[in-house]
Amino acid sequence: MAQRLGESTLLLQTPPAAVSWAAVGGKKEAEGPLGACFDCTSQDSAFGRKSWEAAESEMQHRALETALDKAGFGPGQLQCVFAGDLLNQCIGSTYGLRDMGVPYVGLFGACSTMAEGLALAALFVEGGFARHTAAVTSSHFCSAERQFRFPLEYGGQRPPTAQWTATAAGAAVLGPGQAPPYVRAVTFGRIVDLGVRDAANMGAAMAPAAADTLCRFFRDTGLGPDRFDLVLTGDLGQVGSQLLCQLMEREGNPLGRRHSDCGLMLYDKARHPQVGAGGSGCGCSAAVLCGRLLDDLRSGALHDLLFAATGALMSPTASQQGESIPGVAHLVWLSSAPQEE
Amino acid sequence: MAQRLGESTLLLQTPPAAVSWAAVGGKKEAEGPLGACFDCTSQDSAFGRKSWEAAESEMQHRALETALDKAGFGPGQLQCVFAGDLLNQCIGSTYGLRDMGVPYVGLFGACSTMAEGLALAALFVEGGFARHTAAVTSSHFCSAERQFRFPLEYGGQRPPTAQWTATAAGAAVLGPGQAPPYVRAVTFGRIVDLGVRDAANMGAAMAPAAADTLCRFFRDTGLGPDRFDLVLTGDLGQVGSQLLCQLMEREGNPLGRRHSDCGLMLYDKARHPQVGAGGSGCGCSAAVLCGRLLDDLRSGALHDLLFAATGALMSPTASQQGESIPGVAHLVWLSSAPQEE
Repeated sequence: MAQRLGESTLLLQTPPAAVSWAAVGGKKEAEGPLGACFDCTSQDSAFGRKSWEAAESEMQHRALETALDKAGFGPGQLQCVFAGDLLNQCIGSTYGLRDMGVPYVGLFGACSTMAEGLALAALFVEGGFARHTAAVTSSHFCSAERQFRFPLEYGGQRPPTAQWTATAAGAAVLGPGQAPPYVRAVTFGRIVDLGVRDAANMGAAMAPAAADTLCRFFRDTGLGPDRFDLVLTGDLGQVGSQLLCQLMEREGNPLGRRHSDCGLMLYDKARHPQVGAGGSGCGCSAAVLCGRLLDDLRSGALHDLLFAATGALMSPTASQQGESIPGVAHLVWLSSAPQEE
Repeated sequence: MAQRLGESTLLLQTPPAAVSWAAVGGKKEAEGPLGACFDCTSQDSAFGRKSWEAAESEMQHRALETALDKAGFGPGQLQCVFAGDLLNQCIGSTYGLRDMGVPYVGLFGACSTMAEGLALAALFVEGGFARHTAAVTSSHFCSAERQFRFPLEYGGQRPPTAQWTATAAGAAVLGPGQAPPYVRAVTFGRIVDLGVRDAANMGAAMAPAAADTLCRFFRDTGLGPDRFDLVLTGDLGQVGSQLLCQLMEREGNPLGRRHSDCGLMLYDKARHPQVGAGGSGCGCSAAVLCGRLLDDLRSGALHDLLFAATGALMSPTASQQGESIPGVAHLVWLSSAPQEE
């Protein structure tokens, strides 16, 4: 049973573990610094399918299928899957996982989905609600652009604060803790909205939510940023990362060089300057986590990681109605050890 | 700790209870047979706001606020809220709950959201992850029509299989079980898609998912439909309800007169023939449950209710790309007693 700490952190008493995981990336992602880490990449942005949306479904399907294969599991060994994505009605997940026959808990957390799903999946194992669960999510540059901004053919100009939605997916299978990485704690985020209205500056909209969740985690646990090798946000990019570091310093929890952001790790900016302020999208943090960091935690190269995936709950409809962009960030503490040594 | 039964049912060992609840309805809903049961109704479909989407946020906010008031709670007493709706990016929930400051777990389950949220909320209490949680959802006829079908001004013709998206919201606060109704068990649904492509016949798309979840629950628990006063689906309407009853009979679990559907309870069809095959939308099952049935369970007028909210995971984009409509149904067993007597 989890121990509730402070206002809103859950410390897991018999920490579940990530059993297996997989990451899928597109062409630009394959050419980035983590390209070699992905289980599956495609030179074809459509992943062999007829639409960008179907491509995204394909990516989620491949991510979960590969993660299951690595564990030697069939889908029948999962008691449930937590999934969602950025597309309206989360069709990346719906159609991607339709044929799996696994009880399906649909999420909408925008780019915070990987942490939201991971947290719920871990709690289901901890609570005895499932023996094995999975969290999976994706994003696709082309499906996101046409849904949230402009059709690709329009060739819209991008300001320097704009980020690049990753064409990527990630899936992790969770189960009883037998080998690292373990899920030690989770903190669910609150909706934070400081009034940012610029749909080309998601980092600024999300940074306050990330700061809110991180500060609550540090206050609840009594731990500080120094306890962790890496405090990793999902997709704040250049602008949002700077804002987060300023906010955390002001709150007495300076992150310093322990902070990194998946959106700043995914691309080779010299080669692809169009990625602007960095990567974004549900698939960005999912693929960085499942492509590289879970491996580092298993090997012991990394000991303690705070994974705070950040979501801009942006809606074109709400934006056109003059609304600001609310943010949310969910946090998962991943560790190479199940408890304090 | 919950007991896992069979393939996918969770039997709660210390059943959490619905502490308080509230339902909000629009004008047509207020004129229906359950009109007097709603905590809050409005003759103004915009609920005093400037857009249908903002109206939906207002409804969710009022539903949760009223439920909290009835419990004598402030939002600070909730450790988390599970919410979602039909709007793209779930903006009914995002903007409706933004100012509450409660950790927010965003869901997308289409019209199955109330059961999905209720199941998760109950498990969080059962697992000790939260002392009090809430589930909330909504739908609005006008925001749904323009997003999924046609702008209202177009005056599109509706075939007789079409349903009427309810302008309604419901919220339930869950906590440790001290008084009925108790949450005795939950079963998460799988995605089921038998190839229905008609966006004006949601009932047919969802009925197989409802049958799948109900059959799994009956098989897992060894209970039959006779054990329950009411087997209540969310929004199958006339067409889907008939299909469900046929499917259940074929599977050896005839529902007979124990079955009812929230979509068939919400409206006075003689007065409002335009509702067609019945009500639908996340708010339909949420408002029927929170407006009437939870009260009946508390008073003892109803003893055992299987609440299976049904969702059509329909996407206009996927439909335009030729895809069929997947369905999902999540199930919650609500009872006036915490255990077998």
